[in-house]
Amino acid sequence: MSSTPPYAVALLSGGLDSMVAAALAREEGFAVLALTVDYGQRHRIELEAAARVASAVGVARHVVLPLDLRAFGGSALTADIPVPKEGVGDSIPVTYVPARNTILLSLALGWAEAAGARDLFIGVNALDYSGYPDCRPEFIAAFESLAALATKAADGGPAFRIRAPLQHMTKADIAGEAARLGLDAGLSWSCYDPAPDGLHCGRCDACRLRARGFEEARLPDPTRYADAP
Amino acid sequence: MSSTPPYAVALLSGGLDSMVAAALAREEGFAVLALTVDYGQRHRIELEAAARVASAVGVARHVVLPLDLRAFGGSALTADIPVPKEGVGDSIPVTYVPARNTILLSLALGWAEAAGARDLFIGVNALDYSGYPDCRPEFIAAFESLAALATKAADGGPAFRIRAPLQHMTKADIAGEAARLGLDAGLSWSCYDPAPDGLHCGRCDACRLRARGFEEARLPDPTRYADAP
Repeated sequence: MSSTPPYAVALLSGGLDSMVAAALAREEGFAVLALTVDYGQRHRIELEAAARVASAVGVARHVVLPLDLRAFGGSALTADIPVPKEGVGDSIPVTYVPARNTILLSLALGWAEAAGARDLFIGVNALDYSGYPDCRPEFIAAFESLAALATKAADGGPAFRIRAPLQHMTKADIAGEAARLGLDAGLSWSCYDPAPDGLHCGRCDACRLRARGFEEARLPDPTRYADAP
Repeated sequence: MSSTPPYAVALLSGGLDSMVAAALAREEGFAVLALTVDYGQRHRIELEAAARVASAVGVARHVVLPLDLRAFGGSALTADIPVPKEGVGDSIPVTYVPARNTILLSLALGWAEAAGARDLFIGVNALDYSGYPDCRPEFIAAFESLAALATKAADGGPAFRIRAPLQHMTKADIAGEAARLGLDAGLSWSCYDPAPDGLHCGRCDACRLRARGFEEARLPDPTRYADAP
């Protein structure tokens, strides 16, 4: 006798955070439907990392959904604006993609409702982060409230849960979780601005936060950086 | 001297409701950024109608964004499930696309934030409608609350307004608004299941609601139906 475990949808960017979030969904016993949105990223390397991570985590299905947000402009990650290298600041940086997590969660919600999944995993965290508003706990809570009104849940169907298990972790905590789960963090990709030979640049916000995590966790950093962060 | 009027983003399906909503945005003086999402609809005829409507309304820009929700399945409008013809019922029908309006509004929000628009127009109404939860006033209000947390508005930027000017109109009211605004309703397309020769079928929910609107408004119905609704 075999039975299908319940499904969860996990957003998978190819980065370390979403890798850990998806692995935590697996650890809870979910069959993971992994969703990667190709929103016109400048770097295909992120999509290749997402495919590696999906395989390593052991997801049930991996969908890469093309969605070309370049039609809207407005971010250094989707338009021709330089990625800043001066360090993590206090204000919302130009790498912010307008409404990104709202768009990603709404797509995850659509898949979840179609597949009968009730849990949506997203790897946001609001401690060591770039300051994007759509990574904060109040945003996640508001999206969960919206999901209850946006779907058949509004007419008595089961409710959706937005699961952000890294919400209150530091980057060091996340590096530690990756180690505890036996994940090869080197499969993941964080850099916003890869060096020509496919190395992490070592100087953008994402590289700085990644390197700091391993350092503070006193774990070996498997990442190859062009410049030491 | 010329100055650019403020932008508004309007979701444009090619149907009568979104045509009237976009025209109301124009009437208020907005330069309209019209967004049509091609979510793998079965009928290209809807996209052709959206292009005609965008031109007739006089939008500033029309973006047709491909987004293939067929990867998720789950609706008669995106998967191979028969469209019901028995009349408008009390429960959520199979033509419901999981999380559709959440996805559409999140994309409109992304464009609005990138373009500096604060008003998002959507043609939902919750009187003469098919019973979809994401057409109801409480959903629209919840999305507006989410937008305040999801964007730079959370850090003191100007707030977004979700404008659903047809919210409390009957289909007869909407037909009347179309006439008052001088719109050619015949340019729009409502049918879920077009007849082979490109006519409205006359029997799906959308055709029944459309025909009823003109009839109750005592206005000529420019629509060519295969079967009289």
